[in-house]
Amino acid sequence: MRIYLAGPDVFLPDAAAIAAAKKAICTRHGLEGVFPTDPVEDAAAEAATDRFMKVYLWNEAHIRSCDAMIANLTPFRGPSADAGTVFEVGFMRALGRPVMGYAHADANFRDRTLAFLGSAARRRDAPDEWEDAEGLHLEHFGLQDNLMIDGGILASGGRIVTRAVPAERRWSDLSAFEDCVAALAALHQN
Amino acid sequence: MRIYLAGPDVFLPDAAAIAAAKKAICTRHGLEGVFPTDPVEDAAAEAATDRFMKVYLWNEAHIRSCDAMIANLTPFRGPSADAGTVFEVGFMRALGRPVMGYAHADANFRDRTLAFLGSAARRRDAPDEWEDAEGLHLEHFGLQDNLMIDGGILASGGRIVTRAVPAERRWSDLSAFEDCVAALAALHQN
Repeated sequence: MRIYLAGPDVFLPDAAAIAAAKKAICTRHGLEGVFPTDPVEDAAAEAATDRFMKVYLWNEAHIRSCDAMIANLTPFRGPSADAGTVFEVGFMRALGRPVMGYAHADANFRDRTLAFLGSAARRRDAPDEWEDAEGLHLEHFGLQDNLMIDGGILASGGRIVTRAVPAERRWSDLSAFEDCVAALAALHQN
Repeated sequence: MRIYLAGPDVFLPDAAAIAAAKKAICTRHGLEGVFPTDPVEDAAAEAATDRFMKVYLWNEAHIRSCDAMIANLTPFRGPSADAGTVFEVGFMRALGRPVMGYAHADANFRDRTLAFLGSAARRRDAPDEWEDAEGLHLEHFGLQDNLMIDGGILASGGRIVTRAVPAERRWSDLSAFEDCVAALAALHQN
């Protein structure tokens, strides 16, 4: 069972080491981890002239070749997960294959958004309802992220493992990731 | 031709008015606009007990029923587009249907990220390469957003219309949106 390892881990200075560590965990659970930067042959990517388009098509080819996904949904430069990762979660959900997510966070989406907005957040004329400085509402379901992400993962048969870790381990801790691997391995055996 | 109107417009205080205005533009171009909050019948959504899951499944049913998508990718609470919208772009790309995007922005993704990070951004030991305070690289392709978004939209046969508009019209200006509608209408006729 091939698992696409989605996440902003590709931007880490030690991305290769994280890739190797994630793959080793997958192997230990009888699964094969596929990292976005792994080599892949794809005719459309070969034909593309722009570097970004080659990278896009390589990633898409990897996702299509995988049976499931584990997405690192740790908040990235704002209240939500990395946009590239979120795109990939939506893509895999549409393919109908299971997606697991994990996030290193200590508050839910609404409360992270409130913290992000700070004094720019405004109360609405209803108990515990908020909007931003431009009047756009803050969704408030107690979820890990925007409801499309939580909903899509649940609809796929997966779930999100949220764990608070010390700030210095935000991008290196792999215990929640391993919980996702174990969940997919169990799914695979049943 | 049914067009799913993706975007954080659903969070606007005047969401119903924006929905009506977008649908009127679609109609003028011979297309049918479908807004996320439009009523839809879906057995899975009926069976869901959580409100957020009903909303997720309604949106998914709408997307599956549409022939194309226009996504509002205007930066939302950070350098990237709204996470729910990005999920939907990935979903529609996986279905193989055309996606157009528009964004009200006056800088590319890397430069918006630099502005967002401010003094937390650090130079890397290479010309014009940057990382954030945790060492994660800033991708630098001159695109509207993360390369998965730009790449997925281009791969779908669509494109992104980027336009700088005054701050007070960030969520109300519909000229870039209308360009997307016209592009889909032309695609439909060919």
